Parts: sequence; structure tokens; C-alpha cells
Amino acid sequence: MNWKKLSSSETLLAEKFKKLKLESGSHSPSIFTFLQELPELKIHIDACFLSNPYATELFLNYLNDEVLSTGKIRDLLEFYPSQNRVLAALLSDFLKVDSGNIFIGNGAIEIIQAVLHRFASKKLLINIPTFSSYYEFVPDGCEVVFNKLKKENNYEINCSELIDKIYTEKPDTIVIINPNNPNGAYLNFGELEMLLDSCSKVENVILDESFIHFAYEDKNFNLINTAGLVHKYPNIIIVKSMSKDFGIAGVRAGYAVMDKEKVDLLLMNGFLWNSNGFAEYFFRLYTRADFAYKYENVRLKYIMETIDFMKNLREIAEIKLYSSKANFAMIEMLDGTTADELMSYLLIKHGIYVRNCSDKIGLDGEFLRVASRNKEQNQLIVSAIREFYQT
Amino acid sequence: MNWKKLSSSETLLAEKFKKLKLESGSHSPSIFTFLQELPELKIHIDACFLSNPYATELFLNYLNDEVLSTGKIRDLLEFYPSQNRVLAALLSDFLKVDSGNIFIGNGAIEIIQAVLHRFASKKLLINIPTFSSYYEFVPDGCEVVFNKLKKENNYEINCSELIDKIYTEKPDTIVIINPNNPNGAYLNFGELEMLLDSCSKVENVILDESFIHFAYEDKNFNLINTAGLVHKYPNIIIVKSMSKDFGIAGVRAGYAVMDKEKVDLLLMNGFLWNSNGFAEYFFRLYTRADFAYKYENVRLKYIMETIDFMKNLREIAEIKLYSSKANFAMIEMLDGTTADELMSYLLIKHGIYVRNCSDKIGLDGEFLRVASRNKEQNQLIVSAIREFYQT
Repeated sequence: MNWKKLSSSETLLAEKFKKLKLESGSHSPSIFTFLQELPELKIHIDACFLSNPYATELFLNYLNDEVLSTGKIRDLLEFYPSQNRVLAALLSDFLKVDSGNIFIGNGAIEIIQAVLHRFASKKLLINIPTFSSYYEFVPDGCEVVFNKLKKENNYEINCSELIDKIYTEKPDTIVIINPNNPNGAYLNFGELEMLLDSCSKVENVILDESFIHFAYEDKNFNLINTAGLVHKYPNIIIVKSMSKDFGIAGVRAGYAVMDKEKVDLLLMNGFLWNSNGFAEYFFRLYTRADFAYKYENVRLKYIMETIDFMKNLREIAEIKLYSSKANFAMIEMLDGTTADELMSYLLIKHGIYVRNCSDKIGLDGEFLRVASRNKEQNQLIVSAIREFYQT
Repeated sequence: MNWKKLSSSETLLAEKFKKLKLESGSHSPSIFTFLQELPELKIHIDACFLSNPYATELFLNYLNDEVLSTGKIRDLLEFYPSQNRVLAALLSDFLKVDSGNIFIGNGAIEIIQAVLHRFASKKLLINIPTFSSYYEFVPDGCEVVFNKLKKENNYEINCSELIDKIYTEKPDTIVIINPNNPNGAYLNFGELEMLLDSCSKVENVILDESFIHFAYEDKNFNLINTAGLVHKYPNIIIVKSMSKDFGIAGVRAGYAVMDKEKVDLLLMNGFLWNSNGFAEYFFRLYTRADFAYKYENVRLKYIMETIDFMKNLREIAEIKLYSSKANFAMIEMLDGTTADELMSYLLIKHGIYVRNCSDKIGLDGEFLRVASRNKEQNQLIVSAIREFYQT
């Protein structure tokens, strides 16, 4: 392959990278895998990685003061974490739902797996493009039906079309990611309730809110908490990753809110110590007012910088930016540039790693997903994309 | 209830403790739960907890030098861990089996759950007494049959009796824990092979070796590695917790060795990022020669101290010590003392927390399980039990 705007040695590296990526399946290899397999590759900005870097710093500051410098780290490493129900009880007050409605996961990915394996039995309806685990983790014997979001509608969910599809297909389980991954399209609370009103015959409505902390419906960017919907819609299963908003993917922390009977079914024969010492420390921190106050500051700071970042990306004429209320932007190359070309240029020339969406089913065209990082890095990303089109 | 040798205020605390223990189901509450719910209780020695404390120190030393003091901790917390197959590849050389035979778990408990849910379909044969998760995690529709180990045989597995039971019951899955929990009884390699030779028609032979690092068959206490058995017995599923031997239960690390087809089935629709940053660091460390050398020292030191500990316990006339090659001893009270009484005395008077085996099915009498801790703590445990019988 001839890579646009790369020298032959750079092209070789781009090819090696592509091979490694292909071998790793539908999810990007971790940064550790890259460092091991391609030591010549220098990644300065991981814009494939969807997390708030300021929240990571906040968590590290707390961890440093309370765990590392006090010697309490030994407790976190040596002893078993608390069991699932104990951690659920911690979150109850904070989420304003009963602890019996809460299930703790080793990251949202474990919850997705648990919920699909246990509850999705006959037919699963998924909007595409989407996070691939939702169809990859489908259990044997369960049919997958796609609701293909339309390019002319910017890959946003059209509620009445989705409702029609539900009436026609009669799935037992549907998945709504809000904001959606990879494009960040957002259903507001009113649309969501309308949709849920029409889903009363669906046994499981999985609402994945892993990016909800970056979304907003008012000018103050108030945090949206939909946990209480479980009282009105007992078929809802709200899945929440903590990796993105708190910048702690390595800790593995997530939770779900669902009907008590479903939580009981999951805990009846599994998920005993599926957390870990650091995740338990995080969950305890998450429910503390002092942490919540400081977190709110870094959440708002990051949202505002992300809005700026998207504004700057939107000004580049050769790409189309899709409207997003998540912490990433899906961009489409309009001038014949392939996703591989722009991705490789950014990676090899600038050490900027962005997500090639070529393996995403349901997209028609050449797309990259670019995460918002810190202010300085966001500027470097914008400059590098501009440079690609100017040289 | 009138607790032997406790004052009325001590009795009240013992009752509160008992209530908390009952509420937590068949597994002991974590130390964090105790600290939160019963702040008046002081636990100085957690002899319920089955781990090598010297190994915890060794891991902490490495972590301190390589992760905490270098700032690399941010990487472990912020980024996704490597995927299951990447970590499996790390362990391949070390275990001398192909990486395709290795499955990485978020602790052995996740592996037990995964294997039972995916592979145990009709009938599960379990030796009792045992680790309760093996029957608690059984999937819907799968019958559980117990092979009741005999008291007159010291609750050790009698291979020919077990083989008879397998021929009669025709289970699709059997579980052998070696050394067994809660008594530490050990099948040597010759007995194990004989047993496996007779199990060729059993689809899944789960061999739980979570305590194998504390067992020995020769005078040099050489480490036993049975991973290679998977080549001779494709139905074997070796389950290995790292929590006990490496003293890192809070990290959540375990692995299994099994037929490649079974690993593929597990990974086909799940278990993508079921590790965490600290577990990945541990797995990388585990395969390093420098760490292995130092670990071998603390393993031998702990085994020798555990042998001394058991020798001292055996000298107490009022209790019977069951022969154990694990890092814990099951003791039986022979003088009419109940497990509750001795456990509460040790806890309230000395802050020594031991495992009451009253909830273990398959035991006939009053039993406690006492973990070996460090040398000084082991001496305190022996003295406290002596004191109970002397006052």
C-alpha cells in the first residue's frame, strides 16, 4: 500500500501497526501492547482513548494522599474487596435508588456480558453504528437484528423509526447507547422517555450511559442522573462505565441499575468478588461530597474544552464533524482521503493515535473517531489534521 | 446465647459479629465491611485469610520500586489493561503450555463462574466439604451430586470410592480441589493421574489448584506444576488463584489451563478486559526470573513456618488437627466446645479472626479453619487457643 504523505520507512511502520491492529480484533490494542510490539512507535497523544484526563489527575491526587502516602495501599492489594451487595449499598444514596437495584461490575464490559448472557434470549435489537461488544457478546441462539441509523440523519436515532422497528421485530432486548459510540449522538430526556413509553413489551431495554457525564441539556451543563427511571420502567437496565468520566480504565469500575429481580438473578450464582481493591476505593470516593465537588469542577472544565475542540475541528473544510455530546467526535473525510491514511499520518508523523472506524458496521464512508484530551493536546490534534490537508 | 468465657459486653459484641456474618452469606465479610459496621471490634490477626504475608511484602517492594516511585502508577490506573489473549501469551513460556490453552480471570472466582456457567450442563459432582462457590455458582438446570468425604478417612479423597461414584452418577463435570479447602487434604501426583485416567468420559474435570504453591511432594518442597497435564487429559480444567500464594487478593488475578476449544468458547463472547492494571503488572512480574527467584524464597520460608505452626497446633490435646498441605489447618474441637465459642473467644479476647466451618456442608462435628500467618502471629494464635483451654 502507498500511504499518502509518508516516507518509505514511515510506511513500513504504518503497515506494522495495521497488522497489529488487525490481529487484535475489533478493539484497539492497549498502549502496553503497542509499547511491547512496536517500540519504534512513539505515541504522544492517545486520542483513541475516551477519558477525562483531569479526572485521572484528581483521582491520583486523592489516591496519593489517602492510600499511597499512608501505607493503606497494602490493604487494597492484600485483602479481598467487599462483595457486590456491599458496594451496591454504598452507591444507593448517591444514585437515589435502592441498593437492591444496583449491580457492580468489573467495568461496564462485564455488565454488558452478564446482562446479555443472562437476559437476552431470543432477539436483540441494536442500533448501528455501535460499540461492537453488544453484538459480539450475544449468547448462542439469540438472533441479532440491526436498526441501521441513517447517514442522512447524521446517524442519530429517529425515535419513531426505532419504535416501528421494535413493533415489527418484537425483540426481547434492545440496546440504546446515549450518547452513542462512535458518533456521540444524544437523545434528550424527553425523547428517551417517549421511547421508553413505547418499549413496555420489550423485556430488557439496555440504556448504556457510559458517556452521559459529558452530555448536557441546559446551559449549566448539569449532570444527568436517570437512575430513577428504573421505578417507572422496570424493564430498563442502565449500564454505566466509570472509566471514561473518571479517567480510570485500569481500575475497572462500572455499575448498572435494573429491576431487583434481575440483580438477584445475576448474584444468585456469580459475581461475588468481581471488584478489586482499587475499584472499591474508587466507589467509596465517588460517593463522598468533597470528591464530588472537585470532580464537578474537572467535569465542567473538560466539557467546555471539548466544546472548543469540536468547534475547531468543525472549521476544517475537508472533514465533516458529526454532532456529539460525548467526549469524542466522529469525523468524516470528504475529499477522498481514507481513514487509514489520515490515521497513519497522525500516528506516524505526530504520535497522535485516533480510532479508525473502518471496522464499524453501519457506517458508509471514511470515518475517524477522535477523543478530546487536554487543552494543549486538543490543539495539537487540530493542528496536525490541518497540516495533513495543507501539505 | 451464653458465650463461654466472655463477659456480657464481650458477648454483645460476639452476637453483633455473628449477625453480620450471617447476613453476608456463605463467605466471610471483608475486613473493610467489619471496620465499617463494627468499629469497636479490633482485628489484629486475620487467620481467616488464606495468603502468604511475605509474598505480599515482596510484591509491595516491587510495586514501590517500579510503579509508585516512578510515577508509572498513572498508566496502570488510567489505561485499559491488555486483553485476555495478550496476558495469556505472557504466561505461556512460564507454564510450558501454549497460550491458546490459557484463560485469564479476574480472580479464580470468575473462572469458576465462567467454567460452570459455560460447560457444566447436566450433572456436577463435588466432593464435600468444599469451597461453597462450586455448588452456589451452578447454572440453572444442572444437578449437583455430592461425594461426601468420610470423617473416618479424615475427609480425604479416597480415589477408588470417587471413581465408583463417577461410574454410577455419570456427571459431565467434576471438581477436585487440591489441596482441598477447608481441610488441606492433598492428592499426590500419582493419585491424581490415576484418578484422571478413570475420568476420560467426564467432559470437564475441574482441578482447582489455588493452594498448590503450599504443597510439596519432596523434601526440597519443589513447586508443583501440573499445567502440562492438559496435553494428556484434554478434559482437565486447571483453576489457579494467585490471591493466596502471592498474597494479593485485592488485585484479583487468576488463570486457568484448559483445552483450546474451551478457551475459544469462553472468549468468543466475553471476557475482553476482565483484568485490571495492577493484575497486568502482577502477571508481567510473575513471569520474570528475578521475581520468581525472590518469590521462591518467601514461599519456602512460609511453608516451613506453616509446618511449625501445624506441629504446635497438633500438640493441643483438646483439638484434632487434620493433615494439611495447604496454608491453613482444619481443627476439630473434641471436648464439647462449639466452633462459635472458640471463634468468638479468639476474636473478642485476642482480635484473632478464624473461620467457623459450621456453614460447611459435609462436616460432622465442630470445626474451625485457621490460616497460617507470619511466625509471630502463628505463635499468638497457638497461645490464644491454649489459653482458651487453660482458663
